[in-house]
Amino acid sequence: MAGFRFIALDADDTLWHNEPLFVAAQDRFREILGRYDDVDAIEARLYETEKRNLEVFGYGVKGFTLSMIETAIELTGGAVTGAGIQEIINLGVDMLRSPVELLDGVQETVEALAQQYPLMLLTKGDLLHQENKLARSGLGDHFSVIEIVSDKNARTYESVMLRHGVDPTAFLMVGDSLRSDVLPVLEAGGTAAHVPYPTEWIHEKVPEDALAGRSFARLESIRDLPRWLDELS
Amino acid sequence: MAGFRFIALDADDTLWHNEPLFVAAQDRFREILGRYDDVDAIEARLYETEKRNLEVFGYGVKGFTLSMIETAIELTGGAVTGAGIQEIINLGVDMLRSPVELLDGVQETVEALAQQYPLMLLTKGDLLHQENKLARSGLGDHFSVIEIVSDKNARTYESVMLRHGVDPTAFLMVGDSLRSDVLPVLEAGGTAAHVPYPTEWIHEKVPEDALAGRSFARLESIRDLPRWLDELS
Repeated sequence: MAGFRFIALDADDTLWHNEPLFVAAQDRFREILGRYDDVDAIEARLYETEKRNLEVFGYGVKGFTLSMIETAIELTGGAVTGAGIQEIINLGVDMLRSPVELLDGVQETVEALAQQYPLMLLTKGDLLHQENKLARSGLGDHFSVIEIVSDKNARTYESVMLRHGVDPTAFLMVGDSLRSDVLPVLEAGGTAAHVPYPTEWIHEKVPEDALAGRSFARLESIRDLPRWLDELS
Repeated sequence: MAGFRFIALDADDTLWHNEPLFVAAQDRFREILGRYDDVDAIEARLYETEKRNLEVFGYGVKGFTLSMIETAIELTGGAVTGAGIQEIINLGVDMLRSPVELLDGVQETVEALAQQYPLMLLTKGDLLHQENKLARSGLGDHFSVIEIVSDKNARTYESVMLRHGVDPTAFLMVGDSLRSDVLPVLEAGGTAAHVPYPTEWIHEKVPEDALAGRSFARLESIRDLPRWLDELS
């Protein structure tokens, strides 16, 4: 057993599938708008709107839905119909109600890890939505701490560690995003294990040189986590 | 000094003005829709939409904005224009960016209380928005714990007390809402002080008989809190 006092796990695309829901919603969004504009331009414009709104809406489906609506109005010069906007709202509601599908290996791995370490769920996004997903996942009982935060930067990690009295050297973060789950954890003095997800939101990508000289584990699957921890100790 | 180990304070309409922003947004919303429908019916319809969406959107401005958009589409039979929808989104963004105005007496009272008790900010709504308001309020340093929750019911209070190792008998909640800040706290075994706000969202109202046999303090202003605490001890 490695000397970690807390293992923190990201949720979206680490424990359960999330990005495919956004990709599917964007596909439908393009169909709704397809008759109005160059299909290829839609994605770029939507991402611009999302980035512009991030500071005020934060992460999560509600802000994403508002950004889709705003993009639809912009791209159609206001000509999008009420029915089209309602379809976009329904896309958001469907995402929020969507069943939670665990990634392969998550159930067994989380169960096994919880026998050895206190586990923390550490995720960003809409508070209620993340709580609902955790409830639907059936994994709730394995986590001794739930932290839903508005953003994941070095300050967030420092404050989470402080709040739970964990020294950074005893804190491991596991997640799929280099930008949110790896780099800021290292900056805060913690350890990070990167478990990439097949598709990644452009916003979570980091330039290759941001990784220069950074030391963290890269695992193919969350299934590899227990063995990696055993080897560390 | 009364025997409380934590004094928890609600934020919206307890520390800073909030309901007037919603009232002003609804006034503008009625103006945007005024040409389409009976002005008096708009408010009732909006509240219906909000209630229906609460379970999936939760509390906060983003869900409120999505509910305004949905109501606008419904009430106009889809005829609301893109420009009208954009105006509604702008109303939401303006609310999210709005400066924080403290209620009279809050600054001095919170400063004074923080000398004697650990203070907890305990509020519901959008995570990022509540964090931003706390930052803008300048009150952040006086709170030793910040709890932003998706709903305030007896389970929420029990879990907050448990998380901070506070016995219910040593927990005081102060807030403007009987539904969110008073009744569930009493149900969880804590003490509550009600400081009413002049206007109240219909959703936060409770029937008179829900208060039968309930014991809690009612203060005119947060300014009265320190004296009430002195008298208790």
